[in-house]
Amino acid sequence: MPATKTTLKPKRARRLLSVFDGEALSPPPVWLMRQAGRYLPEYRATRAKAGGFLDLCYNPAMAAEVTLQPIRRFGFDAAILFSDILVVPDALGQKVSFVEGEGPRLVPLADGIAIAKLSLAGADKIFATVAETVQRLRQDLPAETALIGFCGAPWTVATYMIGGQGSSDQAAARGMAYRDPAAFQALMDVLVAASVTYLDGQVRAGADLLQIFDSWAGSLPEDQFDRWVIAPTKALVAEMKRRHPDVPIIGFPRGAGVHGVRFARETGVDAVGCDTAMPLSQIRSSLSGKTVVQGNLDPLLLVAGGERMRTQVRRIVETLGVNPFIFNLGHGIVPHTPPEHVAALVEMVRDKSLLG
Amino acid sequence: MPATKTTLKPKRARRLLSVFDGEALSPPPVWLMRQAGRYLPEYRATRAKAGGFLDLCYNPAMAAEVTLQPIRRFGFDAAILFSDILVVPDALGQKVSFVEGEGPRLVPLADGIAIAKLSLAGADKIFATVAETVQRLRQDLPAETALIGFCGAPWTVATYMIGGQGSSDQAAARGMAYRDPAAFQALMDVLVAASVTYLDGQVRAGADLLQIFDSWAGSLPEDQFDRWVIAPTKALVAEMKRRHPDVPIIGFPRGAGVHGVRFARETGVDAVGCDTAMPLSQIRSSLSGKTVVQGNLDPLLLVAGGERMRTQVRRIVETLGVNPFIFNLGHGIVPHTPPEHVAALVEMVRDKSLLG
Repeated sequence: MPATKTTLKPKRARRLLSVFDGEALSPPPVWLMRQAGRYLPEYRATRAKAGGFLDLCYNPAMAAEVTLQPIRRFGFDAAILFSDILVVPDALGQKVSFVEGEGPRLVPLADGIAIAKLSLAGADKIFATVAETVQRLRQDLPAETALIGFCGAPWTVATYMIGGQGSSDQAAARGMAYRDPAAFQALMDVLVAASVTYLDGQVRAGADLLQIFDSWAGSLPEDQFDRWVIAPTKALVAEMKRRHPDVPIIGFPRGAGVHGVRFARETGVDAVGCDTAMPLSQIRSSLSGKTVVQGNLDPLLLVAGGERMRTQVRRIVETLGVNPFIFNLGHGIVPHTPPEHVAALVEMVRDKSLLG
Repeated sequence: MPATKTTLKPKRARRLLSVFDGEALSPPPVWLMRQAGRYLPEYRATRAKAGGFLDLCYNPAMAAEVTLQPIRRFGFDAAILFSDILVVPDALGQKVSFVEGEGPRLVPLADGIAIAKLSLAGADKIFATVAETVQRLRQDLPAETALIGFCGAPWTVATYMIGGQGSSDQAAARGMAYRDPAAFQALMDVLVAASVTYLDGQVRAGADLLQIFDSWAGSLPEDQFDRWVIAPTKALVAEMKRRHPDVPIIGFPRGAGVHGVRFARETGVDAVGCDTAMPLSQIRSSLSGKTVVQGNLDPLLLVAGGERMRTQVRRIVETLGVNPFIFNLGHGIVPHTPPEHVAALVEMVRDKSLLG
């Protein structure tokens, strides 16, 4: 990639970004959640050299390398920084470790006193390391590839900080939110502030757009969804927009179901990532054309591949591609996905004949 | 309880059943999912004597005892048979065990060949044991207490049979459904037939109504939801209605979100259990008055108790109680629930002044 190109018109060169100017692109831009990961042999090789999972996230050369791997293979329209949503609690002094095959472990925050002790005092080094990865990426990525920075949404990050690990019902966090809403609000405030600092660093290092992952938004009753999903996301988006009005933000409220439309209308995000369960007819009638839409092929259909996948890809592109749209999965790639199915998917999405 | 009462007019005596005649009762009838369980010290005492978890399910005296415990304490309008949704795979010859603190484990069904080997040949003894529990309950319960039989929905039971354990994304089952839909359909057919036999035995032993638990209905795309949730549930309900037209059936498609209304309209169930995430306004506008509604207090609000719980109980009763309605949680009671909060909840629901 000649250096002049990126210097000359770095952003206009990135096709994906023009959906945020209201353009419906044909074919639509495409990237996939967890496109860098265990399904790729080159990822597993780098991962084996890195040591622990966080060691990989905190090694700019290696983190940049695994971010680039799927771009080299598949030429996605966007790369997403390789990192983890639990970098923020780690930076706040709540030690995070990853147990092989079991996922993350943290010493759970028991109460408001533990929450009051969280501090960004030691965060500079961690955030600087991640920013260095972003800088490397912006240098090494093709000029046409958009670079996505990200963080976890305050609610989802809090479920791990209070529960100490993942869970299917987020009972620990939901319990504290009822028992001590003031302490829980304090945690939301800390997380909004930390996420702003973190994302701000990513943007200043070269991220073109941002995604906020709210993977556990699905279990909350309406009033709790408003208070712990919509309100903190809105605060986070507002501050990022104040600092960087031109940087698009994608919200991904996984499992939001019936709350999805309110999320799109009230948080101020520029795009909504739709999960696998959201019916295309409903996305079309309630979101598409009002906001940029991203999604939503079932990652298990990507594992299956073949004609069934082609049929659904066609449906998605035909239904949503007439408005500003980014093709993606409805959830992350699963580890046993055949890489050749990913190649086939990208080819299908880019095959204009698919549309008619 | 005098024996004459139950002999004279056994069913009319059970208040809960009249919501299925279209009556909006004030106060509404109330029972709670997982009302028999670990939050009760007397349950833990019986459980300790039983041995393994399935030993408790398969011991009619003990299973009846733990079913009765919450009725004695709280006088719920319904008792629900103490059992487990994995009794059906166990009866089909797929051995089920429970690992303390980790949940169920099964040897996963790998393919259509494994599915073809499932057989009800050894099921009679297991189903007869459960039916004996139901018989004992019908004898020992107060005449005014309705008795609920249940099974897991074919989709949810299949996620355990194929995955070998619980998971947050049901990837194994969803993958097989795409990879080999014919084999998956065969599994659905086996599960519908086995569930009919199982529920039929419960009804003939004295169950007044039935609930079908579809705890993992939430992750499926629309077309898969139609095929693996709605269609098998509809087949199961149709056959039960043919055999026992007067036995009401409650469907509980947890996490169904945007698919919930279609579930209510298409499966033929008499009532829909609404989960915690379903907004009251939406239940009111799309389900209430068209079908019996059951739900949907957040079990974590039951843990919290106090004024916050009272406010939400009032909202639920005021919004849904004007139509045929059964008060319940939006998901099962969690183990650290204080029993005195359950007592307070029942009192609130039955306090008519709450409504004015």
